[in-house]
Amino acid sequence: MPKVETFDRNQILEKVVRLFHEKGYTATSMQDMVDVTGLNRSSIYNSFGSKLELYNESLKAYKAKMQQFIQKTLIRSTDPIETIRSIFISNEGIDKNGCLLSNCTTEMANQNKKIRSFLIRNRDYVQELFETLVLEGQNEGIINSNKTAKEYAIYLFAALQGVKITGMIVEEPKDIHSVVDTTLSVLY
Amino acid sequence: MPKVETFDRNQILEKVVRLFHEKGYTATSMQDMVDVTGLNRSSIYNSFGSKLELYNESLKAYKAKMQQFIQKTLIRSTDPIETIRSIFISNEGIDKNGCLLSNCTTEMANQNKKIRSFLIRNRDYVQELFETLVLEGQNEGIINSNKTAKEYAIYLFAALQGVKITGMIVEEPKDIHSVVDTTLSVLY
Repeated sequence: MPKVETFDRNQILEKVVRLFHEKGYTATSMQDMVDVTGLNRSSIYNSFGSKLELYNESLKAYKAKMQQFIQKTLIRSTDPIETIRSIFISNEGIDKNGCLLSNCTTEMANQNKKIRSFLIRNRDYVQELFETLVLEGQNEGIINSNKTAKEYAIYLFAALQGVKITGMIVEEPKDIHSVVDTTLSVLY
Repeated sequence: MPKVETFDRNQILEKVVRLFHEKGYTATSMQDMVDVTGLNRSSIYNSFGSKLELYNESLKAYKAKMQQFIQKTLIRSTDPIETIRSIFISNEGIDKNGCLLSNCTTEMANQNKKIRSFLIRNRDYVQELFETLVLEGQNEGIINSNKTAKEYAIYLFAALQGVKITGMIVEEPKDIHSVVDTTLSVLY
């Protein structure tokens, strides 16, 4: 009879996501995973597969959480600029570990084709979201039309990466808020 | 009698910088270094020390090269906005490997205190440079005073990180040029 899993898969995955977020893919060892999950190696292999499979699953879980946050923000806010600001200033915005997906870009974008495709799809998702919000703001007359919504969208995507990475080496959260203010001031 | 080094130290270091730039610190093995330098392990250890020492030396060499480029740009250009643009659109701006120092931030800022200090000193250097250029532009009346030179400087530092990382997953150089145009448009 096959062994029944006696742990909460989502809880374990959450711990592993945090580990990859803190240490990156390559620097995370199987022993680190054993230490943070409390599972033994064979349980990890049997339930999640290889380290690379676990990493891919972690990226998806992290993205899904980000999308949930964005959906909640979209429902709550009626002002597109404030929605964009919320996306910049989520808890992650000043997370000393930065953003798992930005960190993954610098580490893995040129090392693994499947992960590169995932990162490009994520970029497209974020850019399309920004484009929709900017277009909405332009139609309402609260965002200028000095640039097209598409041009603002890729600018905002790049700025978001910059905010995440800068948040890793900035001590004062107010500095990050200042960066976000200046970033968004181009839209008025 | 001690063995005489029969290789060009700077040439070797340049190859190692490229390797760390492509693969990151953790993923680079001693065998990779043997392969790209053509030296054997003991020559590498004797001449450069540990992998971590070689990485620290690579960071310094990369920063020195960046500073040389900036010095040349400062001598050539009389327009502070064009100088800032040149810093954004160096060859590195659309390097598929991003920027060694941004990559180092996501990988090492929280793993090694000495490297973290180096990264913070580098951030201060870049921010002070931008602050000086913005102040010059504000005094000449070609950069607005909607924000202080200090506020624009940290915004530009963050934006520069964003451009480097976005350049790793953008196929079209024109998209990066568009991001830089929008980034700088806030200054006019």
